[in-house]
Amino acid sequence: MTRVLRLAAAQMGPTSRTEPRAVTLDRMIRLLEAAAADGAQLVVFPELAFTTFFPRWLLDDAELLASFETAMPNPGVQPLFDRARALGVGFYVGYAELTPAGQRFNSSITVGPDGAILGKYRKVHLPGSVEPRPGDRFQQLEKRYFEYGDLGFPAFRGPQAWQSPILGMLVCNDRRWPEAWRAYGLQGVELMLMGYNSAAYDPNGGNTEDAALRTFHSTLVAQANAYMNATWAVSVAKAGDEDGSALIGGSCIVDPNGVLVAQAKTLEDEVLVADCDLDACRQGKEKMFNFAAHRRPEHYRRLVDQVGAVLPA
Amino acid sequence: MTRVLRLAAAQMGPTSRTEPRAVTLDRMIRLLEAAAADGAQLVVFPELAFTTFFPRWLLDDAELLASFETAMPNPGVQPLFDRARALGVGFYVGYAELTPAGQRFNSSITVGPDGAILGKYRKVHLPGSVEPRPGDRFQQLEKRYFEYGDLGFPAFRGPQAWQSPILGMLVCNDRRWPEAWRAYGLQGVELMLMGYNSAAYDPNGGNTEDAALRTFHSTLVAQANAYMNATWAVSVAKAGDEDGSALIGGSCIVDPNGVLVAQAKTLEDEVLVADCDLDACRQGKEKMFNFAAHRRPEHYRRLVDQVGAVLPA
Repeated sequence: MTRVLRLAAAQMGPTSRTEPRAVTLDRMIRLLEAAAADGAQLVVFPELAFTTFFPRWLLDDAELLASFETAMPNPGVQPLFDRARALGVGFYVGYAELTPAGQRFNSSITVGPDGAILGKYRKVHLPGSVEPRPGDRFQQLEKRYFEYGDLGFPAFRGPQAWQSPILGMLVCNDRRWPEAWRAYGLQGVELMLMGYNSAAYDPNGGNTEDAALRTFHSTLVAQANAYMNATWAVSVAKAGDEDGSALIGGSCIVDPNGVLVAQAKTLEDEVLVADCDLDACRQGKEKMFNFAAHRRPEHYRRLVDQVGAVLPA
Repeated sequence: MTRVLRLAAAQMGPTSRTEPRAVTLDRMIRLLEAAAADGAQLVVFPELAFTTFFPRWLLDDAELLASFETAMPNPGVQPLFDRARALGVGFYVGYAELTPAGQRFNSSITVGPDGAILGKYRKVHLPGSVEPRPGDRFQQLEKRYFEYGDLGFPAFRGPQAWQSPILGMLVCNDRRWPEAWRAYGLQGVELMLMGYNSAAYDPNGGNTEDAALRTFHSTLVAQANAYMNATWAVSVAKAGDEDGSALIGGSCIVDPNGVLVAQAKTLEDEVLVADCDLDACRQGKEKMFNFAAHRRPEHYRRLVDQVGAVLPA
């Protein structure tokens, strides 16, 4: 049996803080068209795809507000939605969400081939700090600009045209947290969609990791968590140098064995396409990772009963 | 700051069902001596190191009983304990445990340089089946021969001579379960000790995975779970052909970045040695995987509230 969904990762090169929204949207539409021309049915864009990675800056209220979407879609993103529907292609995209009640989240949606929003996710694992680090040129202010996601990890079904896959979404740092993957694994996820902006190194010198090691980390967590949950995964970067702050690339598509099917070679706008047989998840879900047969939650209490580490005496 | 523990992985080649215990023990002592000669302070042996991987056979009561240890140490393993103490070397070893009350577990212990047992673990994630699969030459009867481990995931401190590391133990299939790693991660584990016997392929033809893919899986989960918990890990195989059933090798030592420091090249008795700087765990524990700052257990309830997968409508 095969249930094949043709999938694209639409990696984006850097988006400067001063790049007009129309330019960014045009880049995204060109990536969408390239993926559709290669037969892709679902295109995955990065986290915060419509803007620069603005949490690196301490912004005034006007610039901060301009980075957020107050509805989805809205006039500033409508051309992408229109082009996608015309092509009959769906997409995942990450964006900064401002709710009518004034809450701000680092969110993503998955849009079906008919333009309907199929699922929504709000990032749970926010890195960074609330207060700016004194003296640092580049900040990581996600804990300041966003609330923690309040939707949990809600899996959802894709349309029949996609072979009715069970889909899950994560945003950036979430992909390093096995709890998040397992919450979806326990809903039978068959395809995990993820966008990210990950610094290539610590621009302030507080960390010894370089771009090669960080790209390895990013790829490793996609591979291993896909394997341990017997799911396809696609993990998509905004890459390259954004106003002096470097982001890793390494966007990838991973099969349910954790094997890399495709990986980006550049730090620019780049499309990867792969045929994903969703039934390739079945062997893992029925044997090695047959959760009903093998999990022992009575020994996992520590995962929910404590937040931080508690060391032995 | 550096806190260096010199560690050895003592991979074992196949142990036939008919191999006398004394022969097996002599092999283990030779591995121990080789590791000690290379300066190792702690030597990690495989799962069920004193016997063949007997859960592949439906055994009569006498042969089953003979595969178990009724105390640790006992006369049948005492020479290993004696030689280790004489060399001032500690070790991890997996064995089949029969308790005075008649309970059977797939267990491991860590023995200090003075011969004292520092920690004990009983395998939680038992693969296989209770009933033999009709018509199959090779079984996987761990669920028949063992009870599920009842000790949880108890981290413990190693001695000052080892730089007082926080140690954790897993056995074989446990290493594929991120819940198990996280339970130790939440105790600040700095070095995870693991032995395994993993079939190189399905000898009965019910699975499409080959030896290369299974070795990749084994290495991948050690790397990613070490990274995601910012811990060193050593994962040690019993390898090669045991009476017609092939086991993967691939024993490895992994650093807290998930990077392979050493990996076995053979399917035979083979020693790997590496210097492990326990303070290399600190960057991960304090930044990316600062659990107190970044975990959100309110969204992890599904991990303990359900055992098997529950699919969306």
